[in-house]
Amino acid sequence: VTGALSTGIADEILAKTRRAMDELGLDAVVATSPENVAYVSGAAPPSQKTVRSRLAAAIIPTEGETEVVAVALEGPVVRTQSRLDSIKLYQEFVEDPIEVFADSLRRRGLDQGTLGVEETHLSHADYSKLAATLPKARLVSVDELFSDLRIVKTAAELEAIRDIGAAAQRIHDDVCTTFGAGATEREIANFVAERYADEGGDGLTMLVVGSGPRSAAVNAPPTGRVLEHGDMLRLDIIGTKAHYHSDVARTVAVGEPSEEQQEVYDLLLGVHRRCLEALRPGVLSSDVYRIYSEAMGAARLPPYHFVGHGLGITLHEEPFVNELKSIPLEEGMVLCIEPLTLLEGRFGIQIEDEVLITADGYEPFSEAGELLRLGATS
Amino acid sequence: VTGALSTGIADEILAKTRRAMDELGLDAVVATSPENVAYVSGAAPPSQKTVRSRLAAAIIPTEGETEVVAVALEGPVVRTQSRLDSIKLYQEFVEDPIEVFADSLRRRGLDQGTLGVEETHLSHADYSKLAATLPKARLVSVDELFSDLRIVKTAAELEAIRDIGAAAQRIHDDVCTTFGAGATEREIANFVAERYADEGGDGLTMLVVGSGPRSAAVNAPPTGRVLEHGDMLRLDIIGTKAHYHSDVARTVAVGEPSEEQQEVYDLLLGVHRRCLEALRPGVLSSDVYRIYSEAMGAARLPPYHFVGHGLGITLHEEPFVNELKSIPLEEGMVLCIEPLTLLEGRFGIQIEDEVLITADGYEPFSEAGELLRLGATS
Repeated sequence: VTGALSTGIADEILAKTRRAMDELGLDAVVATSPENVAYVSGAAPPSQKTVRSRLAAAIIPTEGETEVVAVALEGPVVRTQSRLDSIKLYQEFVEDPIEVFADSLRRRGLDQGTLGVEETHLSHADYSKLAATLPKARLVSVDELFSDLRIVKTAAELEAIRDIGAAAQRIHDDVCTTFGAGATEREIANFVAERYADEGGDGLTMLVVGSGPRSAAVNAPPTGRVLEHGDMLRLDIIGTKAHYHSDVARTVAVGEPSEEQQEVYDLLLGVHRRCLEALRPGVLSSDVYRIYSEAMGAARLPPYHFVGHGLGITLHEEPFVNELKSIPLEEGMVLCIEPLTLLEGRFGIQIEDEVLITADGYEPFSEAGELLRLGATS
Repeated sequence: VTGALSTGIADEILAKTRRAMDELGLDAVVATSPENVAYVSGAAPPSQKTVRSRLAAAIIPTEGETEVVAVALEGPVVRTQSRLDSIKLYQEFVEDPIEVFADSLRRRGLDQGTLGVEETHLSHADYSKLAATLPKARLVSVDELFSDLRIVKTAAELEAIRDIGAAAQRIHDDVCTTFGAGATEREIANFVAERYADEGGDGLTMLVVGSGPRSAAVNAPPTGRVLEHGDMLRLDIIGTKAHYHSDVARTVAVGEPSEEQQEVYDLLLGVHRRCLEALRPGVLSSDVYRIYSEAMGAARLPPYHFVGHGLGITLHEEPFVNELKSIPLEEGMVLCIEPLTLLEGRFGIQIEDEVLITADGYEPFSEAGELLRLGATS
């Protein structure tokens, strides 16, 4: 799949990026954040996220050869993944990555140009070093440029997100028919991890497996807790495949749900569907939040400060669906809608689906239904 | 354990930090990196690492009340973990964390003071915002201050690292007696994850489970590969407990090793022991690297560009043991020594132990021995 996606993503994303660069009068972009290096180059050197000094960059001149720069030990990964014209590797401790970026720009005759950098990612120390190394360059922020580009997905990106989103939905279904009372949260987590790998996923980046009172905790990583009749189980499958995220959450009953559990689930599913029905191009993200907030009020459930977010190379990205942001929805955006009710110490319910905004509404990548019972073959 | 460590760590680390601040003439420190927030405050809000905009800070004035600042949804975690005098939570999207940091400094009358910030962590955008918000403050770098402080561990930190290091050693022993040919890498990974949680670990941050030819890959996350007789299995257990890391690697034979596997293991164990014997206060880290490099040469094994690193709140920290850094070893430093030979496509061997530098040598937190056979009860 990675191979098939590569060409499509490369052509469309590079072309989009260069059009946006032209509009801003940039001579080159030096992307350094893990998400934007992955977006424009396809390469995601793993240790870039865990060791801050192992900077990577995607260097995109307005025309001519593009280059990805990474620490030498990530060479094998970067060679497999990068879609850019060349790869430059540096020796950790021996070479300073900022100097290597500057060299790459100099070789392209861009050391006096207008260079776009990520000011919300590049550290103050690295930014200052780059400015001092290229004293005749003009550094401008491309943080917004990338956020604006990434908000509407290309066809190849949609294929990637749809693919792993559908897999997450399938895994939820399989958990439901495989486990029941007596299983531990960790057994379920192991099953999800194995199935996610079988589906071609890179791995889970976060997994919520909260049963009983733990279903009401905001963050509930799996523990050895044994599922009991009367529990609710909240399961949120967050991971990536070929860099793109899945984020699908379900809440199911262990055995027969109580009247209250059934009622809260039904109310929340109603709120969820109200939000989904509102989705189409032109609607503001804040309108969707208002609909959510009013529906929660009508259901006498406390509204949370947001109900959704964009999904792509990062887990949470624009458009955020809250009362503060009024972003008009556009065809090609992917959103997660996730109403949530956490009754502390008792039970929590979360229903989260991924949807694509289409010309006249939305297309679900995953779709929650009525409250399911764990262990029941449905 | 967390509770027991808290008091000791708080007293000693805060006192050390304030002494260093005095020497530099600082009025306050605003720590923002995940590692230094955790170091001085004890709090490690999980999403600080995954969502860049969810900044956290530990604000330490030279005297008076200390404060930790974090995003509101991490309140429950921060309340449990923080050792500082107060906690200030901000609403995501509604409040700008930099403004909240500035407010905290203003309330302490420090808005015209000399403030230490982490220039290699704080983004250029956030640094510029802080400078603009507090125009009369003088911002200076405390990146080196923290690196210097953290290189020698306090008694409570040593207890934490020793504890989870010994646990990693025990888990290696258990893997060795529990599994054999026919097991999959993923089964071993699940076992390690469960045992690590049983030992009180926060979780694994990286786990290498590479068998057969995969034992020679630099990064080898577990797969469904089935272990076969004649394989080598390389297992590196990296995770944290109460924020402090374990990093212990072992290589074992599946069934009877070949003559070559046995020979390379024995040679590498010899190199490992030569390095360990050299450890004592006053020796330079570059001396240890030279001993390693010469011993590898004598064994006709290709030397790697580094053979060790400090261990603590971060996985790789000073002192790095390579030819470029000449740091005199001191009592209270914790090092990982990890000679490695990767024969691409065939097998790889890594032997990694954690040691504490003591007054007259070193104390092992873990200790590798002769080549073990998986599945053999030893």
